[in-house]
Amino acid sequence: MSADTEHTMKHHKRPYAGYSARTFLWQASDDGKVGTITLNRPDRKNPLTFDSYAELRDLFRGLVYATDIKVVVITGAGGNFCSGGDVHEIIGPLTRMSMPELLDFTRMTGDLVKAMRACPQPIVAAVDGVCAGAGAMVALASDMRLGTPSARTAFLFTRVGLAGADMGACTLLPRMIGQGRASELLYTGRAMSADEGLQWGFFNALHEPQALGEAAAQLAAQLAAGPTFAHGVTKKLLHQEWNMGVDEAIEAEAEAQAICMQTRDFHRAYEAFVNKRKPEFAGD
Amino acid sequence: MSADTEHTMKHHKRPYAGYSARTFLWQASDDGKVGTITLNRPDRKNPLTFDSYAELRDLFRGLVYATDIKVVVITGAGGNFCSGGDVHEIIGPLTRMSMPELLDFTRMTGDLVKAMRACPQPIVAAVDGVCAGAGAMVALASDMRLGTPSARTAFLFTRVGLAGADMGACTLLPRMIGQGRASELLYTGRAMSADEGLQWGFFNALHEPQALGEAAAQLAAQLAAGPTFAHGVTKKLLHQEWNMGVDEAIEAEAEAQAICMQTRDFHRAYEAFVNKRKPEFAGD
Amino acid sequence: MSADTEHTMKHHKRPYAGYSARTFLWQASDDGKVGTITLNRPDRKNPLTFDSYAELRDLFRGLVYATDIKVVVITGAGGNFCSGGDVHEIIGPLTRMSMPELLDFTRMTGDLVKAMRACPQPIVAAVDGVCAGAGAMVALASDMRLGTPSARTAFLFTRVGLAGADMGACTLLPRMIGQGRASELLYTGRAMSADEGLQWGFFNALHEPQALGEAAAQLAAQLAAGPTFAHGVTKKLLHQEWNMGVDEAIEAEAEAQAICMQTRDFHRAYEAFVNKRKPEFAGD
Repeated sequence: MSADTEHTMKHHKRPYAGYSARTFLWQASDDGKVGTITLNRPDRKNPLTFDSYAELRDLFRGLVYATDIKVVVITGAGGNFCSGGDVHEIIGPLTRMSMPELLDFTRMTGDLVKAMRACPQPIVAAVDGVCAGAGAMVALASDMRLGTPSARTAFLFTRVGLAGADMGACTLLPRMIGQGRASELLYTGRAMSADEGLQWGFFNALHEPQALGEAAAQLAAQLAAGPTFAHGVTKKLLHQEWNMGVDEAIEAEAEAQAICMQTRDFHRAYEAFVNKRKPEFAGD
Repeated sequence: MSADTEHTMKHHKRPYAGYSARTFLWQASDDGKVGTITLNRPDRKNPLTFDSYAELRDLFRGLVYATDIKVVVITGAGGNFCSGGDVHEIIGPLTRMSMPELLDFTRMTGDLVKAMRACPQPIVAAVDGVCAGAGAMVALASDMRLGTPSARTAFLFTRVGLAGADMGACTLLPRMIGQGRASELLYTGRAMSADEGLQWGFFNALHEPQALGEAAAQLAAQLAAGPTFAHGVTKKLLHQEWNMGVDEAIEAEAEAQAICMQTRDFHRAYEAFVNKRKPEFAGD
Repeated sequence: MSADTEHTMKHHKRPYAGYSARTFLWQASDDGKVGTITLNRPDRKNPLTFDSYAELRDLFRGLVYATDIKVVVITGAGGNFCSGGDVHEIIGPLTRMSMPELLDFTRMTGDLVKAMRACPQPIVAAVDGVCAGAGAMVALASDMRLGTPSARTAFLFTRVGLAGADMGACTLLPRMIGQGRASELLYTGRAMSADEGLQWGFFNALHEPQALGEAAAQLAAQLAAGPTFAHGVTKKLLHQEWNMGVDEAIEAEAEAQAICMQTRDFHRAYEAFVNKRKPEFAGD
């Protein structure tokens, strides 16, 4: 994405269904409402590189201004989700960097999570096989997660001599699976099995590998057919209330829900209900 | 409750066992320590209305000054807990309101949750059948929840075109069942089964429908026979520590517990213990 | 520990493997990396006393400056973990104290939890049998918990007329097992069974009593053989991010991980990887 494009994007909304991805696959559903990111270096289990981190960050930042895409699915090609930062393309260079360069990198990876949390589209991660390191963080930063029985999720930073504190893991993982389980995974770097992930609330559901893509597509389509403006409000408040008091959160929701009560979607739902029809939402 | 009564209530403590409810049933236990709210429009699955929201809010606000009631049970009549805001009596009017009027409404519903969290009495929700929308939020805002195998809990705001952010759902639900499960329920509006609710920590226990009332009464009686001043301190700190750091929370508890160590209940417990008796608490 | 020693400790690092404990047992592993605290009054189920609270607090404060100890195990002798504050030696005297004296006590117990959270060493609690009151809080304040099928954990403050708000329970327990389950345990004081503790995320794993010590030692040895500087960073951020927003936490982790990327352990891991060796960490 050129500087020019970025400039335009910040000020004008535009469609994203036709976005041309360089470092991963991007495919939009026929109605242009669901965009699917497929990490696509299956021979290496879909590692992230400096370039793909940056492009993912830029895409999620851009989606704030999308006129079409309402839900994002993120998955990996060839039976694995993502093996994390590539050892040769990322870890090697990191060992030779100065502190400012290191910070540029860790902030870029963190910015990917920030961008995933800040865009209004709910993100569904569809996770099979290896889901490791930064890949596990991408799954964790998503709004919902579907897995397969063979999904193996490892926050393995400690295995390469690093802290479990990476891209927000120490705040996101405890809220997802509990402080004690998160501590174990972050200190030991051991893989969480799919069954553990389901039982602990990391995965919302497990599907057989051949059914995973369809399950994610169905969930995404269901969300895209819903009140997508309101979904964006839900996402914003799930994010903003992270460290609010209960009373402040309730006031934030009173304001947010009053806004949603002036949408056409809310009026459509009421009219559908009194006419015993199923509401059709348009996201406005 | 008249303005006069409210004025009195704010400045003077008074008994609440004999409170005359207008929009729901209110029954106090023989000793006046447990007050039970029964939402009571069973033909409509006990929806909330503008009036019942307001009366519930005022009752919980008043209970701060109650001289008798130590524990509250909230339940529904006729095999259902609560179907939420009534479509005809609430949703219809909302579609015709101005923004200030909408805010008056969303703040009133939020004030109900704030009042439930701010009163010193632990609240036990006894949930059978339908538990939906604002009804699900009333259950969620309670301190403990007993259910039945047929309890179906749905944060279904999204189904009527609204955000999952309602009455504090985006802060309360993630802390109860985990961020990932809460996200799914709030984005999709799907019902959580009783088994899921138990496994995820929403319900503290499940009972058969015919045993639910008795189980809630027993739990309430047990709490009412305990150190009720200290229970109020526990509730206050569970609320206040929501977004405190660990160190600040520890200091808050050091102060709170020192206060409790000067209660007669604490001294009674010590004397009972050294005399090998069961302590009898009086809440002072 | 004398005032002199404390003074020295604050300014100079020193070994702790040879620490002489007065009120519990302290044993270091052969390599001096794992220190094991054994609460050791088995005839009374290992209660805490004014002296042992203070010594534990001082030890954990001192461990910040330890040159050798990288992981701490805490356990109890004789088939029980800890019965909490001794009724005769603690509760009796408390009933006769002034408010400033009470605060001195509650702050000391809170300072033990603060010190456990503030030292860089991950703490593994190995819990068999009775784990009650302040003992339950010591387990809860640890980073990971291994139990046995007969471990019974009770936050029983309410049983002696006190609030569930003790030593940080109202903030730590909800994040560990969920707000609803924590509320029940803190209001009722009932014991959590080992199975509940495992299912709810309090225990990381259960082992038979005769295997518990070895399991804790193995986990501790595994952690001690890892990148222990990075473990300290993980612990610090799990603590500091308790009430941060997601974005602030991500920035904190970007800075923390950049620091870890300049450690020798990180470079060792990379070199081991490219040479297809297992990395050997040294904690620097």
